[in-house]
Amino acid sequence: MAVNAIDRLVQLFSRLPGLGPRSARRAVLFLIKRRESLMLPLAQGLRDTADAIKICKTCGNVDVNDPCLVCTDLRRDDTIICVVEDVGDLWALERTSSYNGLYHVLGGTLSALDGVGPEDLSISKLITRAGLDNVAEIILATSATVDGQTTAHYVAERLESCEVKVSRLAHGVPVGGELDYLDDGTLSAALKARRVI
Amino acid sequence: MAVNAIDRLVQLFSRLPGLGPRSARRAVLFLIKRRESLMLPLAQGLRDTADAIKICKTCGNVDVNDPCLVCTDLRRDDTIICVVEDVGDLWALERTSSYNGLYHVLGGTLSALDGVGPEDLSISKLITRAGLDNVAEIILATSATVDGQTTAHYVAERLESCEVKVSRLAHGVPVGGELDYLDDGTLSAALKARRVI
Repeated sequence: MAVNAIDRLVQLFSRLPGLGPRSARRAVLFLIKRRESLMLPLAQGLRDTADAIKICKTCGNVDVNDPCLVCTDLRRDDTIICVVEDVGDLWALERTSSYNGLYHVLGGTLSALDGVGPEDLSISKLITRAGLDNVAEIILATSATVDGQTTAHYVAERLESCEVKVSRLAHGVPVGGELDYLDDGTLSAALKARRVI
Repeated sequence: MAVNAIDRLVQLFSRLPGLGPRSARRAVLFLIKRRESLMLPLAQGLRDTADAIKICKTCGNVDVNDPCLVCTDLRRDDTIICVVEDVGDLWALERTSSYNGLYHVLGGTLSALDGVGPEDLSISKLITRAGLDNVAEIILATSATVDGQTTAHYVAERLESCEVKVSRLAHGVPVGGELDYLDDGTLSAALKARRVI
């Protein structure tokens, strides 16, 4: 059978993260059955978003505005900058509603294996931002992976020249986590960072 | 924050089967990073498919042609019709490349609970097709669920008036399946249907 529009669409869907060929086929069939209510809105939504997205020149966030809504929000505390690897991490932190400062998206982690050096990440821009008079604290919120921690260490070193407080996220037992299922590294980190109640 | 194009797109994606809000966000972020190579082709693919899809008036298959490529393929055996619940099942059987006859898509199963009666499924059309001179066998390939089997029984009864052989898919041990993990129903079906080697 020649590759028709349906097969092409299945191929495109199967390139999305978390969708294999089987679930892509399921999604496409689901869409075909909901042509008006979902398929056409999704096509339009993709096009609208593709036209609207902008990368914030200040922090690297993805938004429909540049500078993004976070950077331009006057109610936010512009003395703190939270450094994250990726836009997804920024979104995750925003969903917690427990952080009110600004962000800086590095665009990945340093990785010798993948050939990602400091010049490939948005580090120089961060140093410039950290040097601004109003900035008092930089929170390093990279992942607790080897690459994430290496990147945090490197960024912290580079920030030594700026007169800012540099902090990082706490390690410990995840909320709702059972001790029995935790890895040794997390447990010993939680022990070391124990707090008097 | 007002609902912008990105949030709307995440909402649309999270309505797809197998995608929750979290994986929808991941998919959208993945697309945003691949604007030219994936996001715009996907928007176009959705629109093209929405414009191209047709439901085959003969068998109920979803295709870009009506009658569909299966019904019009002269190399296929038009003496056998395989009755399936849904287009997804038709696609699954086609992928096996081990069936060369025609299909008939019922469009679901009879279900007292969901209020699906015989008139809601494409059963009368099947009876008409089964009455054609060339048709010799009807294979009932509905799911091995209660609703699927009820539907198969009902269709078989309706087909009694036609002079066709009615068969159904074999029950048994799935290829690659371990006996230890199989349910009792499957195991006893496999025992009953055992074959001399």
